[in-house]
Formats: sequence, C-alpha cells, structure tokens
Amino acid sequence: MTRVAAGSWQNCLKKMLFSSSSSSRTRKALSNLASPAHEQIIKSPPLVSLDIRDDIWPLHPSTGFDDLASFSIQEPSKGTKCTHIVYFEYIPIFDEPIVLATEQIGRVIDGKSIAERIRSGIASEVSMMKSSIGKVPGLAVILVGQRRDSQAYVRNKEAACKEVGIKFVMTKLHEKCTQDDICDALSKFNQNPAIHGIIVQLPLPEHLCEGKILDVLSLEKDVDGFNPMNMGNLAMQGREPLFIPCAPKGCIELLLWHNVKIMGKKAVVIGRSNLVGLPASLLLQRHQATVSIVHPFTKNPEQITREADIVVSAVGEPNLVRGSWLKRGAVVIDVGTYPVEDPRCEHGYRLTGDVCYEEAVRVASAITPVPGGVGPMTIAMLLSNTLESAKRTYNFFT
Amino acid sequence: MTRVAAGSWQNCLKKMLFSSSSSSRTRKALSNLASPAHEQIIKSPPLVSLDIRDDIWPLHPSTGFDDLASFSIQEPSKGTKCTHIVYFEYIPIFDEPIVLATEQIGRVIDGKSIAERIRSGIASEVSMMKSSIGKVPGLAVILVGQRRDSQAYVRNKEAACKEVGIKFVMTKLHEKCTQDDICDALSKFNQNPAIHGIIVQLPLPEHLCEGKILDVLSLEKDVDGFNPMNMGNLAMQGREPLFIPCAPKGCIELLLWHNVKIMGKKAVVIGRSNLVGLPASLLLQRHQATVSIVHPFTKNPEQITREADIVVSAVGEPNLVRGSWLKRGAVVIDVGTYPVEDPRCEHGYRLTGDVCYEEAVRVASAITPVPGGVGPMTIAMLLSNTLESAKRTYNFFT
Repeated sequence: MTRVAAGSWQNCLKKMLFSSSSSSRTRKALSNLASPAHEQIIKSPPLVSLDIRDDIWPLHPSTGFDDLASFSIQEPSKGTKCTHIVYFEYIPIFDEPIVLATEQIGRVIDGKSIAERIRSGIASEVSMMKSSIGKVPGLAVILVGQRRDSQAYVRNKEAACKEVGIKFVMTKLHEKCTQDDICDALSKFNQNPAIHGIIVQLPLPEHLCEGKILDVLSLEKDVDGFNPMNMGNLAMQGREPLFIPCAPKGCIELLLWHNVKIMGKKAVVIGRSNLVGLPASLLLQRHQATVSIVHPFTKNPEQITREADIVVSAVGEPNLVRGSWLKRGAVVIDVGTYPVEDPRCEHGYRLTGDVCYEEAVRVASAITPVPGGVGPMTIAMLLSNTLESAKRTYNFFT
Repeated sequence: MTRVAAGSWQNCLKKMLFSSSSSSRTRKALSNLASPAHEQIIKSPPLVSLDIRDDIWPLHPSTGFDDLASFSIQEPSKGTKCTHIVYFEYIPIFDEPIVLATEQIGRVIDGKSIAERIRSGIASEVSMMKSSIGKVPGLAVILVGQRRDSQAYVRNKEAACKEVGIKFVMTKLHEKCTQDDICDALSKFNQNPAIHGIIVQLPLPEHLCEGKILDVLSLEKDVDGFNPMNMGNLAMQGREPLFIPCAPKGCIELLLWHNVKIMGKKAVVIGRSNLVGLPASLLLQRHQATVSIVHPFTKNPEQITREADIVVSAVGEPNLVRGSWLKRGAVVIDVGTYPVEDPRCEHGYRLTGDVCYEEAVRVASAITPVPGGVGPMTIAMLLSNTLESAKRTYNFFT
C-alpha cells in the first residue's frame, strides 16, 4: 500500500479519467465510481449460470483484488473520515497503473434507497402487466397472534404492496388458533388463482408446528422460499429454486449493487436459522464464496469471523458482533433485528442489529445500518418474488 | 500436556480401571478403550434429536476436550509408533483425574470391519423380516454405459445385497440411450412394490440430464437421498430427510463408531458436490460442528484445512490433501476415490484417495484408508437405507 499525498486524490482520478492515454478499463472503473450505472432492477443472475465445474483441483491462480498492488488516498475535503482505496494492477506495457476497483472504508450500504429503486422497477413491471393482460400479482399473508414486531413487518409489507400495485390480502388468526385453522386459510389461498404468493408470518405461537404448516403451502406460491424443495434446489449445483428466501436474496443484492466481488471471498454467516442463516450460506456458496457457518456451539466465533471478507450476521442478539470481530475492510451485512423498548419511538420500540454499528463502521469497508439496511431489501425481494410468480403463472415475460 | 514416564501407561490405566475409588465415568471410559461396546448397528441418531434451539447467544462455556488438561503417554511395548492421548478433567474433590476420553495418533479407521458389523446386523434384520412377514427389501440399480469404475461399484453393491439377503435387480442401458429410456426403466421400478430402493449409478454420460432423471425417481425409494426434497430436509433444522445420502452418512457413522465428538468441533469439507461434499457439510452441521466448505475457488485451502479438527475430503484428486494441510490430531475422512491404472490389480486399476496417506497418518489422530475406509461404509449405508425403506413400506419395526 502506497499512501498518496493528501489533497491529490481528486486530481489524480480526474487526470486518469479524462486522459486519452488511460485504458478503457480504467476509465470505466473510475466513471462507475462517479455515477454507478444500474440498469437491471434485480442484479442476482440465475444460480445455474454461476455453476462452474469443480473438476479442476487445485485451481489457484489467485483471483480477487487482495493480491494486487493497491494504495489508499485520504480524501481531504468535506471533513469526512472515510478513506477511498483504489486497487491498481501494474502492467509493464502501460505507463499508468490500471484501476480495477475503488472502495471506501466505512461506506454505508443504504438498503433503503436501493430497495426504493427496486420497488420503482417492480411498480413499472406491475403497471405494464396490468395494461397488457389486465392482471396484477397478488400476495396473501397469514398473521397469527398479536406480536408487535410481526404486526410491524406485515404493515410494511402491505404498504410496499400498495405502493407497487400488488394486490394484498390478509387473514388474521387468533393466537390460540389450531393447526387446522391455519391450514384451512392456506388451502383457500393455494386455490385462489389471483394469489401468486403466500406467506405465513413467522414466528408462530409455540403450540403450532411451523414445518407442517409450511408443507401445506403450495410450492408455486412459496414466495418466502421456505419449502425444503426450494431449499434443496438452492443448495444443489445445477438446480434453481422457484424462489430464493427474501432476506438472503436481499443480502446478495446489496453486495451486487455495491460491486462487492463474492467469488473466492471468505464469507462467514453468523446464525444458521432455516429462514436466513442457512439459505444465506447456501446462496453465498452458489456465488463461489468460501463459506463458514458460525452458531452457538462454535468455539472462538470472533476469531473465525475476523478472517472473513464478507460477514452476514443473522442472529437477533443486539451488539453480538463487535468491531474486534471484524477484519479491516470487511463488508458487513447485518440481518439481525431485535426490538428494543424505546418509548420515544412511534410504536414504543426500535430495531437494533446484531452488529455494534459504531464500532464496526470504523473497521468495515461497507456496512448495512439497522434499520434501513437488509429490512427494506427483504420486502423488496418479497415483492420481486411475488411478481416473478405472477409472471410465471400468466407466462408474461417482457 | 504432561508426559508420563514411559512404561507406566498400562499400569496407570489398569490401576484406575480396577480401583474401587475410580469414578464410574473413569471406569466406563477406560473399559470402552479396552473393548468398545457397540450395541446399535447404526449409530446416527435421528437428526431432529440433535436440533438445539439457537436462541442463546453467545453460548460460550467452552465445550469439548480441547480446553481440558490432558497428557499423552507413549506406549513403550510392541514397538508401535502410535501415541495414546488420555484426556483428563481435574476436579478438586476427587483424588484422581477423571478420564474423559482416550485417543491414539495415527489410528486407522477401519471402514471395512465396521461395515462388516453393520452388514451383519442388517442381515439379521432382513432375516427377521423374511421370517415374520415373508418379505425382503429390494434394491434396483440402473447402470448406463461401460465405465469401469461404475461397473465395479455396482458389482460391490450386488455382492453386498446378496450377502445380507436384499433382493437385487439391475437394468443395464447402452451408453447412447435416451433420457426417456432411463425414465421408463425408473418408472417401472417406481411402480414395483417389491422394490424399496432405486439408484441410478452416477455419473451418467454427458448427453443425459442427471437432475431431470433423478426427479423422476420416487421420493420414497430415493435411497441415495439425492432428491432436492431430501437435501432440503437434511439442511433444515427441525426436519428429517427420508434418506441421508450414503457416503456422508457413512462418514458420520465412522466418526461415531470411533467416538469422535462432533459438536463444537471445526470441520472442513473439501469439495461441494451434490453427492458428497454438500450433504456431508449439511450433516456435520446438523451434528453441531462449525463447518467450512473448501472448493476450487477457495484461496489458501491448505490454511483453512489446517484449522480443522475433522477433515472430510470428497474431491477425487489423488494426493490433493498433504500432511502439511492437517492440524496435529485431526481426524481425516477420505471419501475421494480415483482409479489409477495398475496392471498388477485384478481389474487393471486401483483406487486412490484425495489424501496423501503416508504423510497424513503421521499427523492425524485417526484416518480412513482408501480403499477400506468410506467405500465399504457407503455400501453398508445403502443397504441400511434400503432396509429402512422396506420397514417403512411394510410398517415393520422390531
């Protein structure tokens, strides 16, 4: 790492950006920094397109930026504390180093604004569907009991559906309802052709068996992707699930929108829940990361996490992941949400993540806040899955 | 680690074994060393019984032996080079240390003899089924083409079925057969009530789509456990697959027969194939190991592997895993089999593993040989899955 004199970074970039002798690769990388061009709404490619035959061992032409010469430049203006790191490759035949990528320490991954752009794209598609075939996607939610957090999540989903033009219907059931009550409600939605996605808001009261209830949910409408068939197809190379679970899909989208390279990176997923941790680990692996899964029986979780380039935490334990758990420059995706009593907030509580944000933001190259990180993305992915399901049903592909 | 004077180890153990002041825990551990009592045929418990709620974070009363006082004793007699390590716990109220476990460096995990004991148990159960209800389990194999290794595997399976009394039928198809030819053969076996397990010998010729063919195979007869529904149920806590894929199940059985503690241990799985690496990683995780998966895009695979207490290698690349890849005392399960031309052998070739055995045996506390390690266990697990399937069909539980 060579540190360039303070004050010179903008000139340095500007010169390279507009210099006719700069390579097109350099210019593209730098102009992406200035105004990233995001044409697709959803950036995740089909998983099968990521599958690569594993029959060449060992395959070790070290990929990734870690092995390349790089230097960081302190941005002197605006009084910000963030640091831009520019990754160069030195190729003898060129006069100048080739810029491969740039990153900024402590960059906030703004899930809210990315989700907004995705929702706006979905709204256009829904509107196009309506005007073309007179149909809109439909999402059904089954809510059991009075949990405040569940109610808040459902409220957000309803608002998001309304915003993009997806039809939203809900069945509310009493906390003491039976397994059969839920299954009856599910069966009605399964049979309703105007409903393309069904979710049972989890967690359910303890007397109900989540697994058996979710098994009743039609595979073609399982927009949460929690059916074991979906999970198996997510895990297995050469296969494609009908739906990828929303929170993990949102995590990958955030990484892709921020141009984080996943292939060959060390990823640690903290938590192994069926809803987030497990599918997140499977999805990262399909994207060619080297994945380790940390859970309550892991010894030295901080040591394992400290080795990761990408950390996804999905536990629900406030401030579990401290700054000392992170490698400098790691990208941190905080899926944890934990309601903490706070009478100052509108609903009497606020949401806190797994990661001690104040500490982590000083170490990570990029980090999601809670709220405003994965949360809005999860809802955007639910809308996207519902839209995809409707498109499949009506064979409507633009 | 305290080294006890050479020559004293047998006396030390004997004294503790027969001393009336020894705790029952100590005596049990030591007598297990002398003559391990294996009453069950299959040691893997139902997976759901292993599920533990993950809602307590961080859970760090360090479990496992690593943190306990221990010493190793060099066995002086017999001229052997192996070292016995006895793990003790010091509890002030006892006069003597409590023996928790013992292990021996370079111990060979003899899959052949364990598989033999398992097969013998299966033979008894099959015989009991026949005498009670006049039925036996039936296994059907579809073999496409002339691959020497596939033919050898199928021969072994046929011989094993005959030995334990399982009915074996085979459909051989030409290498250039169509997808429909295989699906027709599969459908016949699906409908045949005397067949309880069906396997399509993999790999298939390249023009055939493995995934689509396996999807035709009845879930209730998928004794290889390759259906995505099975894989999803293997991955998800709170769920139980109908069948666990045979090779990974064999790996876990070997660990359990050798009293290797899996919970809380660091496990590295090398290779992520749908057939072995992926299900092995999922299974180890269900057994509460902290699992990392190494694949061709992993940087520094040797460094990651060197951190593991348990290494499962399933690649098919001879000698990929060197002694230097292993932590001292690691347990190594070598699933890799690679045919190497050798005119001295009966069929013109011999099988070699992924692990450089000569180097690894000096570092590992226990290791499987190739052949004679996981191979025979895989077949034993296939028989066990077929028996289980027949028991479910006939509702025959002893």
